[in-house]
Amino acid sequence: MTLRRGPRGGGEDTQAKILDAARALFAARGFEDASLRAIAADAGVDPRLIAHYFGTKADLFVAAFRFPFDTTAAVEYVAGPGAEGFGGRLAEFSTGILFGEESSRTMSGLIRAAASHPDAAQIARERLVSQLLLPVATRLGVSHAPLRAELMGTQIAGFVVGRYILQMPHVATVQRSVVSAAWKPVFDHYLTVPLDCAVPQEL
Amino acid sequence: MTLRRGPRGGGEDTQAKILDAARALFAARGFEDASLRAIAADAGVDPRLIAHYFGTKADLFVAAFRFPFDTTAAVEYVAGPGAEGFGGRLAEFSTGILFGEESSRTMSGLIRAAASHPDAAQIARERLVSQLLLPVATRLGVSHAPLRAELMGTQIAGFVVGRYILQMPHVATVQRSVVSAAWKPVFDHYLTVPLDCAVPQEL
Repeated sequence: MTLRRGPRGGGEDTQAKILDAARALFAARGFEDASLRAIAADAGVDPRLIAHYFGTKADLFVAAFRFPFDTTAAVEYVAGPGAEGFGGRLAEFSTGILFGEESSRTMSGLIRAAASHPDAAQIARERLVSQLLLPVATRLGVSHAPLRAELMGTQIAGFVVGRYILQMPHVATVQRSVVSAAWKPVFDHYLTVPLDCAVPQEL
Repeated sequence: MTLRRGPRGGGEDTQAKILDAARALFAARGFEDASLRAIAADAGVDPRLIAHYFGTKADLFVAAFRFPFDTTAAVEYVAGPGAEGFGGRLAEFSTGILFGEESSRTMSGLIRAAASHPDAAQIARERLVSQLLLPVATRLGVSHAPLRAELMGTQIAGFVVGRYILQMPHVATVQRSVVSAAWKPVFDHYLTVPLDCAVPQEL
Protein backbone atom coordinates (compact mmCIF):
# COMPACT_ATOMS: atom_id res chain seq x y z
CA MET A 1 0.00 0.00 0.00
CA THR A 2 1.34 3.41 -0.92
CA LEU A 3 1.07 6.03 1.80
CA ARG A 4 0.14 9.33 0.23
CA ARG A 5 0.38 12.65 2.00
CA GLY A 6 -2.63 14.90 1.86
CA PRO A 7 -6.24 13.84 1.58
CA ARG A 8 -6.83 10.84 -0.68
CA GLY A 9 -9.90 9.18 -2.09
CA GLY A 10 -12.14 7.38 0.40
CA GLY A 11 -12.48 7.96 4.13
CA GLU A 12 -13.76 11.52 3.73
CA ASP A 13 -15.73 11.21 6.98
CA THR A 14 -12.67 10.01 8.83
CA GLN A 15 -10.55 12.80 7.36
CA ALA A 16 -13.17 15.39 8.31
CA LYS A 17 -13.27 14.03 11.87
CA ILE A 18 -9.49 14.21 12.11
CA LEU A 19 -9.42 17.77 10.75
CA ASP A 20 -12.14 18.91 13.16
CA ALA A 21 -10.31 17.37 16.11
CA ALA A 22 -7.00 18.86 14.91
CA ARG A 23 -8.44 22.38 14.55
CA ALA A 24 -9.98 22.21 18.02
CA LEU A 25 -6.91 20.80 19.74
CA PHE A 26 -4.33 22.95 17.96
CA ALA A 27 -6.41 26.01 18.85
CA ALA A 28 -6.86 24.96 22.48
CA ARG A 29 -3.35 23.67 23.24
CA GLY A 30 -1.15 25.19 20.57
CA PHE A 31 0.93 23.40 17.97
CA GLU A 32 3.45 21.84 20.31
CA ASP A 33 1.18 20.56 23.05
CA ALA A 34 -1.51 19.10 20.78
CA SER A 35 -0.26 15.54 20.25
CA LEU A 36 -1.24 13.39 17.29
CA ARG A 37 -2.27 10.74 19.83
CA ALA A 38 -4.72 13.17 21.49
CA ILE A 39 -6.08 14.35 18.14
CA ALA A 40 -6.62 10.73 17.09
CA ALA A 41 -8.37 10.00 20.40
CA ASP A 42 -10.69 13.00 20.00
CA ALA A 43 -11.46 11.96 16.43
CA GLY A 44 -12.00 8.36 17.52
CA VAL A 45 -9.50 6.97 15.02
CA ASP A 46 -6.27 5.01 15.09
CA PRO A 47 -3.29 7.43 15.27
CA ARG A 48 -1.74 5.68 12.26
CA LEU A 49 -4.64 6.88 10.13
CA ILE A 50 -3.46 10.48 10.64
CA ALA A 51 -0.06 9.66 9.16
CA HIS A 52 -1.78 7.71 6.41
CA TYR A 53 -4.07 10.53 5.36
CA PHE A 54 -2.05 13.62 6.20
CA GLY A 55 1.62 12.79 6.90
CA THR A 56 3.47 14.64 9.67
CA LYS A 57 2.07 16.84 12.42
CA ALA A 58 3.08 19.95 10.44
CA ASP A 59 1.30 18.53 7.37
CA LEU A 60 -1.82 17.96 9.46
CA PHE A 61 -1.63 21.51 10.80
CA VAL A 62 -1.40 22.91 7.28
CA ALA A 63 -4.38 20.81 6.17
CA ALA A 64 -6.45 21.71 9.24
CA PHE A 65 -5.98 25.44 8.71
CA ARG A 66 -6.28 25.54 4.96
CA PHE A 67 -8.43 28.52 4.00
CA PRO A 68 -11.90 27.34 3.03
CA PHE A 69 -11.71 29.18 -0.29
CA ASP A 70 -9.67 29.19 -3.46
CA THR A 71 -6.92 31.82 -3.06
CA THR A 72 -6.46 32.34 -6.80
CA ALA A 73 -10.13 33.20 -7.19
CA ALA A 74 -9.95 35.41 -4.08
CA VAL A 75 -7.03 37.41 -5.47
CA GLU A 76 -8.87 37.77 -8.78
CA TYR A 77 -12.06 38.98 -7.05
CA VAL A 78 -10.27 41.52 -4.85
CA ALA A 79 -7.58 42.82 -7.22
CA GLY A 80 -8.83 41.90 -10.70
CA PRO A 81 -11.01 45.00 -11.23
CA GLY A 82 -8.11 47.31 -10.27
CA ALA A 83 -7.63 49.91 -7.54
CA GLU A 84 -11.08 51.47 -8.03
CA GLY A 85 -13.36 49.94 -5.39
CA PHE A 86 -10.52 47.84 -3.96
CA GLY A 87 -11.15 48.70 -0.28
CA GLY A 88 -14.80 47.72 -0.54
CA ARG A 89 -14.01 44.40 -2.17
CA LEU A 90 -11.31 43.48 0.35
CA ALA A 91 -13.61 44.53 3.20
CA GLU A 92 -16.43 42.37 1.83
CA PHE A 93 -14.16 39.42 1.22
CA SER A 94 -12.32 39.55 4.55
CA THR A 95 -15.44 40.12 6.66
CA GLY A 96 -17.01 37.19 4.81
CA ILE A 97 -14.23 35.02 6.22
CA LEU A 98 -14.14 36.62 9.67
CA PHE A 99 -17.88 36.34 10.22
CA GLY A 100 -18.30 32.88 8.66
CA GLU A 101 -18.83 30.10 11.17
CA GLU A 102 -16.27 27.65 9.85
CA SER A 103 -13.85 30.13 8.29
CA SER A 104 -13.70 32.26 11.44
CA ARG A 105 -12.86 29.14 13.46
CA THR A 106 -10.05 28.43 11.01
CA MET A 107 -8.71 31.98 11.31
CA SER A 108 -8.93 32.19 15.08
CA GLY A 109 -7.43 28.72 15.54
CA LEU A 110 -4.59 29.70 13.25
CA ILE A 111 -3.79 32.92 15.15
CA ARG A 112 -4.16 31.17 18.50
CA ALA A 113 -1.77 28.40 17.46
CA ALA A 114 0.61 30.99 15.98
CA ALA A 115 0.94 32.56 19.42
CA SER A 116 2.34 29.31 20.78
CA HIS A 117 4.64 28.06 18.04
CA PRO A 118 6.88 29.65 15.38
CA ASP A 119 5.95 27.00 12.80
CA ALA A 120 2.29 27.85 13.20
CA ALA A 121 3.14 31.56 13.03
CA GLN A 122 4.92 30.98 9.74
CA ILE A 123 1.96 29.09 8.31
CA ALA A 124 -0.44 31.83 9.46
CA ARG A 125 1.77 34.49 7.88
CA GLU A 126 1.95 32.59 4.61
CA ARG A 127 -1.80 32.01 4.52
CA LEU A 128 -2.72 35.62 5.20
CA VAL A 129 0.08 37.56 3.54
CA SER A 130 2.07 35.47 1.04
CA GLN A 131 -0.91 33.67 -0.49
CA LEU A 132 -3.55 36.37 -0.29
CA LEU A 133 -2.69 39.98 0.51
CA LEU A 134 0.72 40.16 -1.14
CA PRO A 135 -0.53 38.80 -4.50
CA VAL A 136 -3.39 41.31 -4.24
CA ALA A 137 -1.11 44.31 -3.61
CA THR A 138 1.39 43.13 -6.23
CA ARG A 139 -1.35 42.70 -8.81
CA LEU A 140 -2.45 46.28 -8.16
CA GLY A 141 1.07 47.48 -8.98
CA VAL A 142 1.57 49.73 -5.96
CA SER A 143 4.89 50.76 -4.44
CA HIS A 144 5.88 49.00 -1.20
CA ALA A 145 3.42 46.19 -1.99
CA PRO A 146 4.76 43.88 0.77
CA LEU A 147 4.48 46.51 3.52
CA ARG A 148 1.01 47.57 2.35
CA ALA A 149 -0.13 43.95 2.28
CA GLU A 150 1.20 43.40 5.79
CA LEU A 151 -0.44 46.57 7.15
CA MET A 152 -3.79 45.30 5.81
CA GLY A 153 -2.95 41.94 7.37
CA THR A 154 -2.43 43.52 10.80
CA GLN A 155 -5.95 44.97 10.73
CA ILE A 156 -7.49 41.67 9.65
CA ALA A 157 -5.48 39.61 12.18
CA GLY A 158 -6.25 42.21 14.85
CA PHE A 159 -9.96 41.80 14.27
CA VAL A 160 -9.60 38.05 14.80
CA VAL A 161 -7.78 38.79 18.06
CA GLY A 162 -10.33 41.36 19.21
CA ARG A 163 -13.41 39.33 18.33
CA TYR A 164 -12.37 35.76 19.09
CA ILE A 165 -9.39 35.87 21.44
CA LEU A 166 -9.70 39.03 23.56
CA GLN A 167 -13.49 38.83 23.05
CA MET A 168 -13.98 42.59 23.07
CA PRO A 169 -17.72 42.77 23.76
CA HIS A 170 -18.76 45.17 20.98
CA VAL A 171 -16.43 43.83 18.32
CA ALA A 172 -17.67 40.33 19.26
CA THR A 173 -21.28 41.30 18.55
CA VAL A 174 -21.03 43.95 15.83
CA GLN A 175 -22.74 43.24 12.51
CA ARG A 176 -20.62 42.31 9.54
CA SER A 177 -22.01 45.21 7.47
CA VAL A 178 -20.79 47.76 10.03
CA VAL A 179 -17.25 46.39 10.00
CA SER A 180 -17.21 46.09 6.23
CA ALA A 181 -18.33 49.72 5.80
CA ALA A 182 -15.80 50.94 8.37
CA TRP A 183 -12.93 49.00 6.75
CA LYS A 184 -13.54 50.08 3.14
CA PRO A 185 -11.62 53.40 3.41
CA VAL A 186 -9.03 51.85 5.73
CA PHE A 187 -7.93 49.31 3.11
CA ASP A 188 -7.97 51.97 0.36
CA HIS A 189 -5.82 54.10 2.66
CA TYR A 190 -3.25 51.35 3.27
CA LEU A 191 -3.14 50.77 -0.50
CA THR A 192 -2.36 54.37 -1.34
CA VAL A 193 -0.87 56.20 1.68
CA PRO A 194 2.60 57.57 0.88
CA LEU A 195 5.24 55.36 2.50
CA ASP A 196 8.23 57.10 1.01
CA CYS A 197 10.30 57.06 4.15
CA ALA A 198 9.86 53.28 4.36
CA VAL A 199 13.01 51.58 3.15
CA PRO A 200 12.08 48.78 0.74
CA GLN A 201 13.24 45.55 2.32
CA GLU A 202 14.89 42.70 0.47
CA LEU A 203 13.59 39.70 2.36
CA MET B 1 5.14 38.96 59.60
CA THR B 2 2.33 40.42 57.57
CA LEU B 3 2.07 39.13 53.99
CA ARG B 4 1.15 41.99 51.72
CA ARG B 5 -0.04 41.61 48.15
CA GLY B 6 1.52 43.81 45.53
CA PRO B 7 5.02 45.18 45.48
CA ARG B 8 6.28 46.31 48.87
CA GLY B 9 9.28 48.22 50.07
CA GLY B 10 12.66 46.46 49.83
CA GLY B 11 13.70 43.63 47.55
CA GLU B 12 13.24 45.69 44.38
CA ASP B 13 15.92 43.63 42.63
CA THR B 14 14.22 40.40 43.61
CA GLN B 15 10.86 41.72 42.50
CA ALA B 16 12.30 42.85 39.16
CA LYS B 17 13.87 39.40 38.65
CA ILE B 18 10.54 37.71 39.40
CA LEU B 19 8.66 40.03 37.02
CA ASP B 20 11.19 39.48 34.21
CA ALA B 21 10.98 35.71 34.64
CA ALA B 22 7.17 35.86 34.81
CA ARG B 23 6.87 37.93 31.62
CA ALA B 24 9.18 35.55 29.75
CA LEU B 25 7.54 32.37 30.97
CA PHE B 26 3.93 33.55 30.65
CA ALA B 27 4.71 34.66 27.09
CA ALA B 28 6.46 31.40 26.19
CA ARG B 29 4.13 28.90 27.87
CA GLY B 30 0.88 30.75 28.38
CA PHE B 31 -0.86 31.52 31.64
CA GLU B 32 -1.84 27.99 32.57
CA ASP B 33 1.40 26.18 31.79
CA ALA B 34 3.75 28.72 33.35
CA SER B 35 4.02 27.47 36.94
CA LEU B 36 5.00 29.66 39.87
CA ARG B 37 7.65 27.06 40.67
CA ALA B 38 9.22 27.45 37.20
CA ILE B 39 9.05 31.24 37.40
CA ALA B 40 10.76 31.14 40.79
CA ALA B 41 13.44 28.80 39.43
CA ASP B 42 14.12 31.09 36.45
CA ALA B 43 14.30 34.10 38.77
CA GLY B 44 16.55 32.19 41.17
CA VAL B 45 14.31 32.82 44.17
CA ASP B 46 12.32 30.79 46.66
CA PRO B 47 8.76 30.22 45.30
CA ARG B 48 7.36 31.56 48.59
CA LEU B 49 8.83 34.95 47.79
CA ILE B 50 6.44 35.26 44.83
CA ALA B 51 3.42 34.83 47.08
CA HIS B 52 5.03 37.20 49.56
CA TYR B 53 5.59 39.99 47.04
CA PHE B 54 2.75 39.48 44.57
CA GLY B 55 0.08 37.10 45.91
CA THR B 56 -1.59 34.62 43.55
CA LYS B 57 -0.56 33.60 40.06
CA ALA B 58 -3.24 35.89 38.61
CA ASP B 59 -1.91 38.76 40.75
CA LEU B 60 1.59 38.08 39.44
CA PHE B 61 0.30 38.04 35.86
CA VAL B 62 -1.39 41.41 36.36
CA ALA B 63 1.80 42.86 37.86
CA ALA B 64 4.02 41.41 35.12
CA PHE B 65 1.92 42.88 32.34
CA ARG B 66 1.15 46.23 33.90
CA PHE B 67 1.53 48.92 31.25
CA PRO B 68 4.79 50.78 31.76
CA PHE B 69 3.01 54.11 31.78
CA ASP B 70 0.39 55.97 33.77
CA THR B 71 -2.97 55.39 32.09
CA THR B 72 -4.56 58.54 33.48
CA ALA B 73 -1.80 60.66 31.96
CA ALA B 74 -2.07 58.70 28.72
CA VAL B 75 -5.81 59.35 28.43
CA GLU B 76 -5.19 63.03 29.16
CA TYR B 77 -2.47 63.27 26.51
CA VAL B 78 -4.49 61.52 23.80
CA ALA B 79 -8.00 62.86 24.50
CA GLY B 80 -7.46 66.01 26.55
CA PRO B 81 -6.95 68.40 23.61
CA GLY B 82 -10.18 67.16 21.95
CA ALA B 83 -10.95 65.52 18.61
CA GLU B 84 -8.69 67.86 16.61
CA GLY B 85 -5.39 66.04 16.09
CA PHE B 86 -6.64 62.98 17.96
CA GLY B 87 -5.48 60.39 15.38
CA GLY B 88 -1.96 61.77 15.37
CA ARG B 89 -1.72 61.74 19.16
CA LEU B 90 -3.03 58.18 19.50
CA ALA B 91 -0.71 57.06 16.68
CA GLU B 92 2.28 58.66 18.40
CA PHE B 93 1.34 57.27 21.78
CA SER B 94 0.56 53.73 20.62
CA THR B 95 3.60 53.41 18.35
CA GLY B 96 5.70 54.63 21.28
CA ILE B 97 4.52 51.58 23.20
CA LEU B 98 4.68 49.15 20.29
CA PHE B 99 8.21 50.13 19.29
CA GLY B 100 9.60 50.47 22.83
CA GLU B 101 11.84 47.62 23.89
CA GLU B 102 10.27 46.87 27.27
CA SER B 103 6.73 48.04 26.50
CA SER B 104 6.56 46.01 23.29
CA ARG B 105 7.61 42.92 25.24
CA THR B 106 4.81 43.62 27.69
CA MET B 107 2.26 43.99 24.89
CA SER B 108 3.35 40.95 22.91
CA GLY B 109 3.58 38.79 26.03
CA LEU B 110 0.11 39.90 27.00
CA ILE B 111 -1.41 39.04 23.62
CA ARG B 112 0.50 35.75 23.46
CA ALA B 113 -0.71 34.74 26.91
CA ALA B 114 -4.24 35.87 26.03
CA ALA B 115 -4.28 33.35 23.18
CA SER B 116 -3.83 30.53 25.66
CA HIS B 117 -6.02 31.49 28.59
CA PRO B 118 -9.34 33.36 29.04
CA ASP B 119 -8.10 35.04 32.25
CA ALA B 120 -5.15 36.49 30.39
CA ALA B 121 -7.46 37.53 27.55
CA GLN B 122 -9.64 39.40 30.00
CA ILE B 123 -6.65 41.20 31.49
CA ALA B 124 -5.38 42.13 28.01
CA ARG B 125 -8.81 43.44 27.06
CA GLU B 126 -9.04 45.51 30.22
CA ARG B 127 -5.54 46.94 29.77
CA LEU B 128 -6.04 47.94 26.16
CA VAL B 129 -9.71 48.86 26.01
CA SER B 130 -11.25 49.44 29.45
CA GLN B 131 -8.31 51.37 30.90
CA LEU B 132 -7.06 53.19 27.84
CA LEU B 133 -9.08 53.38 24.63
CA LEU B 134 -12.57 53.42 26.13
CA PRO B 135 -11.78 56.33 28.50
CA VAL B 136 -10.26 58.14 25.50
CA ALA B 137 -13.32 57.66 23.27
CA THR B 138 -15.69 58.45 26.13
CA ARG B 139 -13.79 61.63 26.97
CA LEU B 140 -14.15 62.72 23.34
CA GLY B 141 -17.94 62.39 23.62
CA VAL B 142 -18.50 60.35 20.44
CA SER B 143 -21.44 58.04 19.75
CA HIS B 144 -20.73 54.30 20.01
CA ALA B 145 -17.65 55.05 22.10
CA PRO B 146 -17.14 51.38 23.15
CA LEU B 147 -17.25 50.04 19.58
CA ARG B 148 -14.96 52.82 18.31
CA ALA B 149 -12.50 52.13 21.12
CA GLU B 150 -12.51 48.43 20.32
CA LEU B 151 -12.03 49.01 16.58
CA MET B 152 -8.93 51.08 17.39
CA GLY B 153 -7.87 48.30 19.75
CA THR B 154 -8.08 45.70 16.96
CA GLN B 155 -5.62 47.69 14.85
CA ILE B 156 -3.20 48.13 17.76
CA ALA B 157 -3.46 44.47 18.85
CA GLY B 158 -3.15 43.39 15.22
CA PHE B 159 0.11 45.27 14.86
CA VAL B 160 1.47 43.42 17.89
CA VAL B 161 0.43 40.15 16.25
CA GLY B 162 1.90 41.09 12.87
CA ARG B 163 5.20 42.42 14.20
CA TYR B 164 5.96 40.15 17.14
CA ILE B 165 3.92 36.97 16.75
CA LEU B 166 3.45 36.34 13.01
CA GLN B 167 6.70 38.27 12.42
CA MET B 168 5.59 39.71 9.10
CA PRO B 169 8.97 40.73 7.65
CA HIS B 170 8.17 44.32 6.63
CA VAL B 171 5.99 45.17 9.61
CA ALA B 172 8.75 43.70 11.80
CA THR B 173 11.33 46.11 10.36
CA VAL B 174 9.30 49.21 9.42
CA GLN B 175 10.23 52.50 11.11
CA ARG B 176 7.98 53.83 13.82
CA SER B 177 7.47 57.12 11.95
CA VAL B 178 6.02 55.30 8.92
CA VAL B 179 3.48 53.42 11.02
CA SER B 180 2.59 56.50 13.02
CA ALA B 181 1.95 58.53 9.85
CA ALA B 182 -0.07 55.71 8.29
CA TRP B 183 -2.22 55.27 11.43
CA LYS B 184 -3.08 58.94 12.02
CA PRO B 185 -6.04 59.03 9.57
CA VAL B 186 -7.07 55.48 10.50
CA PHE B 187 -7.66 56.41 14.16
CA ASP B 188 -9.43 59.64 13.15
CA HIS B 189 -11.60 57.52 10.85
CA TYR B 190 -12.55 55.05 13.58
CA LEU B 191 -13.38 58.00 15.84
CA THR B 192 -15.77 59.60 13.36
CA VAL B 193 -17.03 57.03 10.81
CA PRO B 194 -20.84 56.75 10.91
CA LEU B 195 -21.82 53.55 12.74
CA ASP B 196 -25.54 54.17 12.71
CA CYS B 197 -26.50 50.61 11.89
CA ALA B 198 -24.50 49.38 14.89
CA VAL B 199 -26.82 48.56 17.77
CA PRO B 200 -25.48 50.11 20.98
CA GLN B 201 -24.71 47.28 23.36
CA GLU B 202 -25.43 47.30 27.06
CA LEU B 203 -22.64 45.21 28.44
